Amino acid sequence: MNPPALARVRGALDHFRIELPSWGFADTGTRFGKFYQDAAAIDLNDKLADAGEVHRLTGCCPRVALHVLWDFAPGVAARTVTRLARRYGVKVGSINPNLFQDQEYKWGSLTNRDPAIRRRALAHMRASIKLGQAVGSDSVSLWLADGTSYPGQANLRDRKHALTASLQACHRWLARGQTLLLEYKPFEPAFYATDLADWGMAYILAQKAGARAKVLVDTGHHYQGQNVEQIVAFLLDEGMLGGFHFNDRRYADDDLTFGSLDPYQAFRIFQEIHSYGSERGRLPAVAYMIDQSHNEKPKVEATIQTVVMAQELFAKAALVDQAELKKRQAREDVIGAEMILKEAFFTDVRPTLAAWRRTRGLPPDPLGAYRRSGYAKAAAADRRRRRRELNLTRAGSYA
Amino acid sequence: MNPPALARVRGALDHFRIELPSWGFADTGTRFGKFYQDAAAIDLNDKLADAGEVHRLTGCCPRVALHVLWDFAPGVAARTVTRLARRYGVKVGSINPNLFQDQEYKWGSLTNRDPAIRRRALAHMRASIKLGQAVGSDSVSLWLADGTSYPGQANLRDRKHALTASLQACHRWLARGQTLLLEYKPFEPAFYATDLADWGMAYILAQKAGARAKVLVDTGHHYQGQNVEQIVAFLLDEGMLGGFHFNDRRYADDDLTFGSLDPYQAFRIFQEIHSYGSERGRLPAVAYMIDQSHNEKPKVEATIQTVVMAQELFAKAALVDQAELKKRQAREDVIGAEMILKEAFFTDVRPTLAAWRRTRGLPPDPLGAYRRSGYAKAAAADRRRRRRELNLTRAGSYA
Amino acid sequence: MNPPALARVRGALDHFRIELPSWGFADTGTRFGKFYQDAAAIDLNDKLADAGEVHRLTGCCPRVALHVLWDFAPGVAARTVTRLARRYGVKVGSINPNLFQDQEYKWGSLTNRDPAIRRRALAHMRASIKLGQAVGSDSVSLWLADGTSYPGQANLRDRKHALTASLQACHRWLARGQTLLLEYKPFEPAFYATDLADWGMAYILAQKAGARAKVLVDTGHHYQGQNVEQIVAFLLDEGMLGGFHFNDRRYADDDLTFGSLDPYQAFRIFQEIHSYGSERGRLPAVAYMIDQSHNEKPKVEATIQTVVMAQELFAKAALVDQAELKKRQAREDVIGAEMILKEAFFTDVRPTLAAWRRTRGLPPDPLGAYRRSGYAKAAAADRRRRRRELNLTRAGSYA
Amino acid sequence: MNPPALARVRGALDHFRIELPSWGFADTGTRFGKFYQDAAAIDLNDKLADAGEVHRLTGCCPRVALHVLWDFAPGVAARTVTRLARRYGVKVGSINPNLFQDQEYKWGSLTNRDPAIRRRALAHMRASIKLGQAVGSDSVSLWLADGTSYPGQANLRDRKHALTASLQACHRWLARGQTLLLEYKPFEPAFYATDLADWGMAYILAQKAGARAKVLVDTGHHYQGQNVEQIVAFLLDEGMLGGFHFNDRRYADDDLTFGSLDPYQAFRIFQEIHSYGSERGRLPAVAYMIDQSHNEKPKVEATIQTVVMAQELFAKAALVDQAELKKRQAREDVIGAEMILKEAFFTDVRPTLAAWRRTRGLPPDPLGAYRRSGYAKAAAADRRRRRRELNLTRAGSYA
Repeated sequence: MNPPALARVRGALDHFRIELPSWGFADTGTRFGKFYQDAAAIDLNDKLADAGEVHRLTGCCPRVALHVLWDFAPGVAARTVTRLARRYGVKVGSINPNLFQDQEYKWGSLTNRDPAIRRRALAHMRASIKLGQAVGSDSVSLWLADGTSYPGQANLRDRKHALTASLQACHRWLARGQTLLLEYKPFEPAFYATDLADWGMAYILAQKAGARAKVLVDTGHHYQGQNVEQIVAFLLDEGMLGGFHFNDRRYADDDLTFGSLDPYQAFRIFQEIHSYGSERGRLPAVAYMIDQSHNEKPKVEATIQTVVMAQELFAKAALVDQAELKKRQAREDVIGAEMILKEAFFTDVRPTLAAWRRTRGLPPDPLGAYRRSGYAKAAAADRRRRRRELNLTRAGSYA
Repeated sequence: MNPPALARVRGALDHFRIELPSWGFADTGTRFGKFYQDAAAIDLNDKLADAGEVHRLTGCCPRVALHVLWDFAPGVAARTVTRLARRYGVKVGSINPNLFQDQEYKWGSLTNRDPAIRRRALAHMRASIKLGQAVGSDSVSLWLADGTSYPGQANLRDRKHALTASLQACHRWLARGQTLLLEYKPFEPAFYATDLADWGMAYILAQKAGARAKVLVDTGHHYQGQNVEQIVAFLLDEGMLGGFHFNDRRYADDDLTFGSLDPYQAFRIFQEIHSYGSERGRLPAVAYMIDQSHNEKPKVEATIQTVVMAQELFAKAALVDQAELKKRQAREDVIGAEMILKEAFFTDVRPTLAAWRRTRGLPPDPLGAYRRSGYAKAAAADRRRRRRELNLTRAGSYA
Repeated sequence: MNPPALARVRGALDHFRIELPSWGFADTGTRFGKFYQDAAAIDLNDKLADAGEVHRLTGCCPRVALHVLWDFAPGVAARTVTRLARRYGVKVGSINPNLFQDQEYKWGSLTNRDPAIRRRALAHMRASIKLGQAVGSDSVSLWLADGTSYPGQANLRDRKHALTASLQACHRWLARGQTLLLEYKPFEPAFYATDLADWGMAYILAQKAGARAKVLVDTGHHYQGQNVEQIVAFLLDEGMLGGFHFNDRRYADDDLTFGSLDPYQAFRIFQEIHSYGSERGRLPAVAYMIDQSHNEKPKVEATIQTVVMAQELFAKAALVDQAELKKRQAREDVIGAEMILKEAFFTDVRPTLAAWRRTRGLPPDPLGAYRRSGYAKAAAADRRRRRRELNLTRAGSYA
Repeated sequence: MNPPALARVRGALDHFRIELPSWGFADTGTRFGKFYQDAAAIDLNDKLADAGEVHRLTGCCPRVALHVLWDFAPGVAARTVTRLARRYGVKVGSINPNLFQDQEYKWGSLTNRDPAIRRRALAHMRASIKLGQAVGSDSVSLWLADGTSYPGQANLRDRKHALTASLQACHRWLARGQTLLLEYKPFEPAFYATDLADWGMAYILAQKAGARAKVLVDTGHHYQGQNVEQIVAFLLDEGMLGGFHFNDRRYADDDLTFGSLDPYQAFRIFQEIHSYGSERGRLPAVAYMIDQSHNEKPKVEATIQTVVMAQELFAKAALVDQAELKKRQAREDVIGAEMILKEAFFTDVRPTLAAWRRTRGLPPDPLGAYRRSGYAKAAAADRRRRRRELNLTRAGSYA
């Protein structure tokens, strides 16, 4: 690695911060069931502790995304939460409203035809936004499960109008410095039409909502064969890329660890960001967040694995020699240009990452360090005991 | 409709029997939650009552598929179940083992590397097969959720060997007249590799298992763009088509009502069956079963809707003039041949169906009759009350 | 069919005009070769004659889309073409520039990094726009084959900028009354990134181009599983739907006859248009155009088949009782609302269409009338002879 | 790299032979046209020269697949071809019949309903098989373009029967030592149903054909999201994997350079082969062949790029520590097992490959060496001149 490349990689690593999802430490599963883990987090304290452990080992995850319904007990003061986070060495990141779990939302939340339910959903949004202000978070990430499952079930344009009005209302509540991130998804849990189905819908509705609404790209929320990095490049160019949810998948929204199936696609996404940044002299402000659900992998381990993989791929993308790439592109040397990407991708950056970690007092191999730390065993013992004491049952059946 | 066509349609309707799934009457949902319905079945009695109601109104659903884990309480005698079914005018159909809900099966059931867990799964299979014999059912439908979610997680060939041996053991336990139906699925809940991923794997493993193992085609278990009717024609020709699970989908295994998204595909599947039948002088023995999960539609209504749609599409396919089709095919008249299918598909068979129903003392419009019957309201009241008495909570959270 | 429904169907048929593609009458194929047909059109005269024949029999195809490179010989006056069209009872419809056939466009046309090639492409666009004015056509349909086939090959944002500037230039050349239709396509012939990959990109670039730029929806240019009718509803609501290219497909952009694989999807697209129209009191102004490539079906027959199928599906969609649909939607009667669509779709409108044709002096069965007319035989004989005289060879090899 | 790993990599490289396709050096394109290259091969001599150049630089491509229609002029003696190949330092590899280019095959070749056309196709197959014997080739690779484009067009079972009988006839003509490789493809150029649509059909028909018929896996011939390596593992386990066609794609059968879009998938395929080989003590006999079509990349360069990428990925897969992998799998350490694959994949094997090349007197960087060699420039000049002399026109139009 030549010195300028090394400098780019180091700069990229210094820049790269990944937000952890509180729900990534709890038990999650599929509609067919959950495989429970003793070490899974029971409450917000556990989640923040787990997140703190990931940050302690990786040094690049200072913020934790919180989920309003699951993480904020009614009546708990915001400052209690920020204090708790601080105790574990992390801060509150993005606030995630929940508009899909309550029975009231069977026919939609922000798009529900019933104004009373829309109001209820908006009140939840407003509370989430205020909560964000109270905890010092700068973004509200909205994943909308609204949609319809059968042709004819609803007037799609009516739902679009309702959503537009709802988002405009939400935007008015934002404080200066707060961003509203709109996440799109083409399928699941609505089966026929999801109300924010693709990046185009998210983009247009964000524009209608207001200047602080941006698009959130979840790497698992695309059609098969879709060129995700092109969408990212397009959104960057439009100033509309708000952030990412990292995960991977083979068929649907599988929520697997990032880069586990197609690391080269993830690299190409990062390459678009570095390409954009190199033209502007600095990397763009983009919220990098994880959104994964682990049914089989131990949750803290899977999170560390994702963080490390994301760092490696981000570093590899930083290796791309943008000036040389432009030269080869300029002479239509397709193979030569492509090889610039391939050479960066196949360069082993792990020693460089290990060195970077050492200079920061971090373990060079965070996953190995975690495995040796005894954290998982202790957490499992503690949480098993508390589950018993709290008489928490873990059941649930598909049908 | 000319007389021979009418006769074909009537014969097809007389022949066509659709098996109902007991679990289709219970609350089901997505990994993000369930929307509970008051009228959803609580127990086997409710399920059989609901199935009986569907059969009473449609006259073509005399059998109910049962699910071992959810429908058979330990210690309940088989005869109690058959008697209960009889009370509601139905019989026990296919027996469905459950090898995916227990925590033990986290790493697989019939393919688990741990012989003790494989034995446990096999014991469940054996019990299911015996139960089938006890209740007079002629088929065991195996949907295997086994698989792996990450590359490297397991040796795929080892799992294939384990599955082969397991299925051979199961086959030995079958009584004469019992069939083992193997259902394939390319994704979910295993995300990387499902152990019975496609019809080819199901076919080959069925062949290895023994002569009474056949392939079960679930209409929602295919890759996008896959030609399902070609698979059906191929399996018919090989004598390996055991049966169907009816449902529809847009993106994944959405378990929507049959024909709700692509009725022409369903028609083409039936056309392959009629084409095959017309050459042999009789329709093949194929188990037609529903497998749907309704989170939003009322369950009994959705089931009636599916049954009626399936009848209409089966009748339309019976309309296809196979002799004329062959003539046009023989002169490579692509458009003419295609139009035979299109004309059958776009012929309105609803009056013919209504007439057929009337001759059998059935309501000409089963869905309308059901809506007028008051059944749903009564069931909702009764089950709401019983839920209260039984102190049944309905909760569950994604994370 | 009750009188209001009948009136809706008749009104819909009176309204519905389908533009024919000149290239649909010529020999086309796949990269593996073409299967040549004697009756395939040799030149513009043949194409207009064939289109005239389709219009003579169907009465709803008064316009023919022309392709600049293939249909306009250099130096031929525009008025010669309009006169020729008139001779066959048709008019010139949409003008289709060709920016993909010349060797110069290997690395792109409107997005090419070489300003000289971009200028050449723009000159072609300008000539096409002027030609449209000269022949009295009101739309220019741009399908852009530009894109890249490998990661790294080009800077995606640079290409976006070039395309934006190019489209803005084109827009300036439009006469009042002329529309620029932007067609998107996610794959083929560029394999990695197509420069107008989806409706979102087409929408945003149309907005940047100017008020007379709209989006063109080709029914075969979507990802698998994508909800096309939702995109249509969205574009209608935004006033950005310019028109359609009709065809069908199973896997890719197969250019099959419309409705041949998924007629219910086509019906749902039309249902969105009728829904929109019913709220505004009139059907929206949308350009309905065919874009198909027939390698096997006889071209005139395939075109008539498509026209008739489109009429039937458009008439079925007109049958939808929008008022009743709204009522059922309002009470969240998912099944009831869906059944409105299903009932319309499964109503046999062919007798109504035949009656409508008779009142217009048209043959009730256009395809049958064509087959009986002897046109195909005469055309084949004439064109076979002319091919011989012109010494036209028909060859070409994949490799 | 520890010594045993290094030994595995070296052994893998010694073993790995990649067959080049003669047609990969000729001009190919899409249905929208070809972008002609001066250096593209005109005739078999050029193709063999180009292949010889690739082998000279990479040392691992001693064989060239030939295409009967394009490469064997009528009347040319087999020995002339073998001698020509020898002149360029290569041998004749797999023989590829062509059953898709002639107009006679419009409705199919081996599946055509017309016995005369089937006989013609069989005669071509027989000639190809004999040619294989004459040139000392051990495999005949059959890619069958047969299929139908519309529902109803043909009886799918009749076509299956015709194909079965045709393949059985072909198998009888095989000499001892000759293999018949059956390639499957789910789409294109037939749009509705391809007669060998997936690996299951290829497997079953190969079994019916005879013991020397095996399945050929083209990496671009799968549904999106399909797990190709699982199919490979399954076929290996069944002794039915005959060989590969290497290429890559994003959406359809894009025929891009191998590993250009998803190198990790290609690595996982190789990992299954190494896993299988490690259990048996030797790598299985599998024919590794390239099948790509380059419209934009220079053909010799693209071929070298593919060969080098395939070597790198094969070497990376050889790095996988199978014993350690089994250990981690045995304790259900999903992350640990996955990391074994990831670590191998992300190890930079390029220095090892360069060293291996040096020990064999090969240039350490074959692509760079080629670019410096002047071969392309000379070939372009020579072929440009010969095209002029031969008065070869290069035209063709989509419509």
